[in-house]
Amino acid sequence: MHAGFTDLETTAMSAALQAARNGHRGANPLVGAAILTRDSQIVVGHHAGAGSPHAEVDAITTAIDLGVDLAASTLFVTLEPCNHTGRTGPCAQAIIEAGIPDVVFALPDSNGVAAGGGATLAEAGVRVRSGLGRDESSALNARWRRAVDAERPFVTVKIAQSLDGMVAASDGTSQWITSAQSREHSHEFRSRVDGILVGSGTVLADDPRLNARGPSGEPLETQPMPIVLGLTSLPPESFLALNPDTIHLRTRNITAALGELHARGLRHILVEGGPSVLGAFFAAGAVDEVFCYQAPLLVGAGRSSLSGLGTSTLSEAVGLVPDETAEPAVAQLGPDVLLHFVTGDTSFGTTDNYTI
Amino acid sequence: MHAGFTDLETTAMSAALQAARNGHRGANPLVGAAILTRDSQIVVGHHAGAGSPHAEVDAITTAIDLGVDLAASTLFVTLEPCNHTGRTGPCAQAIIEAGIPDVVFALPDSNGVAAGGGATLAEAGVRVRSGLGRDESSALNARWRRAVDAERPFVTVKIAQSLDGMVAASDGTSQWITSAQSREHSHEFRSRVDGILVGSGTVLADDPRLNARGPSGEPLETQPMPIVLGLTSLPPESFLALNPDTIHLRTRNITAALGELHARGLRHILVEGGPSVLGAFFAAGAVDEVFCYQAPLLVGAGRSSLSGLGTSTLSEAVGLVPDETAEPAVAQLGPDVLLHFVTGDTSFGTTDNYTI
Repeated sequence: MHAGFTDLETTAMSAALQAARNGHRGANPLVGAAILTRDSQIVVGHHAGAGSPHAEVDAITTAIDLGVDLAASTLFVTLEPCNHTGRTGPCAQAIIEAGIPDVVFALPDSNGVAAGGGATLAEAGVRVRSGLGRDESSALNARWRRAVDAERPFVTVKIAQSLDGMVAASDGTSQWITSAQSREHSHEFRSRVDGILVGSGTVLADDPRLNARGPSGEPLETQPMPIVLGLTSLPPESFLALNPDTIHLRTRNITAALGELHARGLRHILVEGGPSVLGAFFAAGAVDEVFCYQAPLLVGAGRSSLSGLGTSTLSEAVGLVPDETAEPAVAQLGPDVLLHFVTGDTSFGTTDNYTI
Repeated sequence: MHAGFTDLETTAMSAALQAARNGHRGANPLVGAAILTRDSQIVVGHHAGAGSPHAEVDAITTAIDLGVDLAASTLFVTLEPCNHTGRTGPCAQAIIEAGIPDVVFALPDSNGVAAGGGATLAEAGVRVRSGLGRDESSALNARWRRAVDAERPFVTVKIAQSLDGMVAASDGTSQWITSAQSREHSHEFRSRVDGILVGSGTVLADDPRLNARGPSGEPLETQPMPIVLGLTSLPPESFLALNPDTIHLRTRNITAALGELHARGLRHILVEGGPSVLGAFFAAGAVDEVFCYQAPLLVGAGRSSLSGLGTSTLSEAVGLVPDETAEPAVAQLGPDVLLHFVTGDTSFGTTDNYTI
């Protein structure tokens, strides 16, 4: 039992923390909520990513559907309810309007404009307590907070390779190493990020569009911003040169590039390659998570998925950790395997520049 | 419903086939059995590998424990009951002694000494039918049969590598890429095979012992035969040179090596490396299954797990297929991932020799 809270309250906060894990990782914090009813039922909600209802609202909506008496309930939420109107309305107001008289949050929200929800609730006569589950909530969002604190976007790296780590055979053939199911999965993921970054070498080699498409090639509703990193000019007839939304960052410095993207309002980017760009992001310690799509193929020789890491001995290798918080860290995806990692210790980082 | 068999009989054979999948892959066929009782209960058994009771005996033992009236039961088995005394007694005799009056088997046993169990049963007055589930049973054992028909051992390849396909960093450091859990798993597997094969280059580089050890280094009960492939002589003081059981195959021809091992009675070998030996086995189309232990590390540069495959374009890559028949094809093993593949089309094969 947590000091000052009953076993039942501790259980409710655990349910909220568990619900938080259902959210998408990335540029939004993982937040869960649980409503503890008069008859000790627990109704949970979570935040499913940018644009979706916040966890509190998700739980309140479900509770209303179930006919819960909110006036006799307590709301547990893993992050202080927000006080601002972003893409969704302020949660503090929603809680007051729902008539919930008692709120427990785990972690104060230090995020400038969104902070202060607790005070708003208290002013409206709601009983407000905090601190229960604080450490768990903080740990759940350490990666997101690391990016926020560094004032850079959250960085997901995508690697799509053969079992022996190749992205192309010796003669350059590379389509398709991974399966249609993997490509569909990665396009769905593309539609959840603010931008997709490749090196200028990839533009020259592949002329990619970097948009998010459905199984039949149709564009998905939300499209990421195309981002090119590197000093080389884009071929004028390439898809990305013709796309007015393309951001071309004429630098090889990863920190500078991320600062520029953050200043432009991008909060989550997906880095797709090529090998030297992936290597540079890892070498700069600027990777938060990794999706590795692995095809059951042995290519034997060709182009490796990563280059320029600058390691020479095993102890310098970049260590990854299976991501246990959301979907399974390892899953079959058609014939392929999808591995979902987070980066561990970020002390690694030998260089901030890359060479194409 | 299968022609000539009732729905209940078809269900019983399906249960036997499902039980068969619990067995270890490798040098023994996957065999399952199911006893259908007078009151329509189904009691299953399977063969858990060399030295364990055959599936029929496993099911009979369980049925006796449960008090089943065997004289009023039918035995379903996925392979014709054996007629010979190997490490276990003949199953035909066990069935007769158990008093089971009715036997259905899926697939005739064409294996010389073991064949003929059906005739023995019929002579003893047992009703014998066959063919129900024949195709499923045959498919389940296609790989094993391929090795038997080629008169070579069943070949499992072990790959232990980083996420980017490396077995060593640029400076040669390689201990330990994979985790203690992975090593424990692979030592347990070592104790289930007849022999472990490495190239002579690996002996020079690593001086391996190739024995099966437990977590504290203690030797496991069953030990594999150490096998070295290659023309180079072993250093006289190396563990394998000093081990009188070591088989040194002074050839680079994979087919010749496998023929020699088969002639010496080895039915299942584990090929552990190095990279050129693994490549040569794949290139020769002589791989039946693959265990790939993958550590969550990006080494960046170094020695690849495979070499000498001889591929130059993507269509020449070796295709693998997740093994769906036994344990999950993909699983976390401590911090590592274990991938269990079978080889698909065996038409690939450009060479029969390898170069160290």
